[in-house]
Amino acid sequence: MKVLVINSGSSSLKYKLFDLAGPRAICAGLVERIGSSESSLTHTLYSDPGPGEKTELFEYFENHTQAIEKVAALLMAGDEPLVKSAQELVAIGHRVAQGGEIFKENCIVDDWAIEGIRENIVLAPLHNPANLAGIEAAMAHFPGVPSVAVFDTLFASHLPDYVYRYALPAAYYTQYKVRRYGFHGASHAYVTRTLAGLMGKPLNELSNIVCHLGNGSSITAVKGGVCRETSMGMTPTSGLIMGTRCGDIDPSLPAYLASCTGKSAAQIQTVLDRESGLAGICGMNDMRDIHKAMALGDDNARLAFEMLCHGIKKYIGAYYAVLGRLDAIAFTAGIGENDAGVRGKCLEGLEHLGIIVDQEVNAGLRGKSARISTDDSAVAVWVVPTDEEFEIATICKDLVLRSNKNV
Amino acid sequence: MKVLVINSGSSSLKYKLFDLAGPRAICAGLVERIGSSESSLTHTLYSDPGPGEKTELFEYFENHTQAIEKVAALLMAGDEPLVKSAQELVAIGHRVAQGGEIFKENCIVDDWAIEGIRENIVLAPLHNPANLAGIEAAMAHFPGVPSVAVFDTLFASHLPDYVYRYALPAAYYTQYKVRRYGFHGASHAYVTRTLAGLMGKPLNELSNIVCHLGNGSSITAVKGGVCRETSMGMTPTSGLIMGTRCGDIDPSLPAYLASCTGKSAAQIQTVLDRESGLAGICGMNDMRDIHKAMALGDDNARLAFEMLCHGIKKYIGAYYAVLGRLDAIAFTAGIGENDAGVRGKCLEGLEHLGIIVDQEVNAGLRGKSARISTDDSAVAVWVVPTDEEFEIATICKDLVLRSNKNV
Repeated sequence: MKVLVINSGSSSLKYKLFDLAGPRAICAGLVERIGSSESSLTHTLYSDPGPGEKTELFEYFENHTQAIEKVAALLMAGDEPLVKSAQELVAIGHRVAQGGEIFKENCIVDDWAIEGIRENIVLAPLHNPANLAGIEAAMAHFPGVPSVAVFDTLFASHLPDYVYRYALPAAYYTQYKVRRYGFHGASHAYVTRTLAGLMGKPLNELSNIVCHLGNGSSITAVKGGVCRETSMGMTPTSGLIMGTRCGDIDPSLPAYLASCTGKSAAQIQTVLDRESGLAGICGMNDMRDIHKAMALGDDNARLAFEMLCHGIKKYIGAYYAVLGRLDAIAFTAGIGENDAGVRGKCLEGLEHLGIIVDQEVNAGLRGKSARISTDDSAVAVWVVPTDEEFEIATICKDLVLRSNKNV
Repeated sequence: MKVLVINSGSSSLKYKLFDLAGPRAICAGLVERIGSSESSLTHTLYSDPGPGEKTELFEYFENHTQAIEKVAALLMAGDEPLVKSAQELVAIGHRVAQGGEIFKENCIVDDWAIEGIRENIVLAPLHNPANLAGIEAAMAHFPGVPSVAVFDTLFASHLPDYVYRYALPAAYYTQYKVRRYGFHGASHAYVTRTLAGLMGKPLNELSNIVCHLGNGSSITAVKGGVCRETSMGMTPTSGLIMGTRCGDIDPSLPAYLASCTGKSAAQIQTVLDRESGLAGICGMNDMRDIHKAMALGDDNARLAFEMLCHGIKKYIGAYYAVLGRLDAIAFTAGIGENDAGVRGKCLEGLEHLGIIVDQEVNAGLRGKSARISTDDSAVAVWVVPTDEEFEIATICKDLVLRSNKNV
């Protein structure tokens, strides 16, 4: 029961092959710099339990179709191919950035879905076209294998109106679809379900916060498995401070900065997305570098660290209030799974809110599931490594099995 | 011991006269539409305990100087003038919108202070020039009476750097002074001190949140009388949803909306400040109208109400986390003092955070000091009517007495 998961960026294509009946991941890879003379493919064969043998190819990939063709050739090559024939694939799952208000469920891609993803390009002008290119290349190369669209916005697609609306003229919502969408859906969904399992609590009774802290970061408040709040808004620029994204700022600032600097609105947007965040404050966007610099007394690194942690702390408090009752907080993604300093700092001094971290357990934990709160902490705090591709593969399998009982 | 307090807007001048030795307010008034043929002055004489006799004058006021001259004439007119001579005034206190990083204390206005207020015009292009006009008119008409500048930003001028900085390129802070300033300082300071008194707790031991909810709204987190967080940022457009201001939105939205609508950045800023907030959602910016419309089943009014309350709730949760320990929450200003519906809704379901409202006491309370939480609520919730002019008058008196022991 094999599922291929594809995540297409504007000039990249990530893939991961799962056998959902056997060992989870079979192989994964990345095609980079599609369309450039420096394009390359890195293919990694998985051995149990993690990545094993690695192949690097430097080849010219003109577009996503060529990239998919090469990936297919790799999967099907040799005497014992990873995929014997296209028919062995139950589905190909595609991460799609923006489902807008059109998609309230993930779905097997048909003409209607392609049209819907195209309609949402206005809301995700960089990502949706790349996702479509990946879908179309896969459908052309693997006819008969269902392609499944898994939307990054889906987990937050059932927010209450008083959460997703902005206090802007109502016509901006009806005419221009301006609302909070939220992203990182597969990760928040996966971590929430895994957390319920780890805690031995039925998902529909769990009230939790997920802190997905990576290069992009977002926090969600979840009740009974349903997302009730999310820190990212209309775009992934908003919410927490990120590697190079500014997160929440004063809405008067973009225009003010344009007038101060003489930059255009588009140039300021680039600053907000690529020159801000941790990098804007201290010149570094990797928390490992920031910790090293802090240890050497770099005050800007200290400031970036404190700003990030203060922002996370505020969201945790806000979402605790939104949920009313909080069973658990889960940390995930690159920073959430590996950075004990960030986890410890953003939860510091929350004893009155019933959140007590076991600093020793926390300090020793990197990249695996464990509870880091003390036994007497009313709110459990967990580290839960995310696996967005596995979540997408699982969604694919469930959707295809439901639509076709004969598979 | 009389102090005149002046609050100059771009085309208005509010004033209030206090006798800090006797009954508090002697009179107050408002000059409106300065520079227009429809300009007018409303003068209200106070009787104990509140506003009494009212005078309305329709006259042409060309500028703030003429307005001050008329106010002075009214105060000094008759056989028993409210102010016998300029020498009877201990000080004239001026509310000044933006002190920037130049002013870490309120101060008696001298050439240096005037220069500083002028330097900050770039940060408050509408307000600081009007404030300066009021100061210069008062100094010209009452030579020898000290003018005192009381900055709206002062209460938040000692925020930690990780609170006041934005995650933007560091040069924007150093070159363009882009940071969180916070406003409504006199109100937050007055309410916090009054709250400590009502609770019989030393100010330096109090950990509290102030919800100043009026036409403009802001929330502060205060520890030991010192502001640790504030919802307004670089400008008063940010933070909570307000009457016509949008509050916090996705930072990508201003540019996106400009491209959708064809409006300029300046026109979008006007939309964010004057056509958004409660008015943008439901067409009404007065909570009394919104409650009436909700009662008639207006769903947009319901949405505006819920968005406002949800936003307040999130700030309360966030600031509880920032403070770590929370003794009390105070509601103040037009909505905070009078709107039991908003107070009740934004505190709903916070029992797990130790916040329990006595809904009966809350429902019956309008415009006066009282505790609205139950006896077993770990966090006390109070309504504390604000008095920004009295706070300014008190600051004036203290500053002048300190600088001149002979007064």
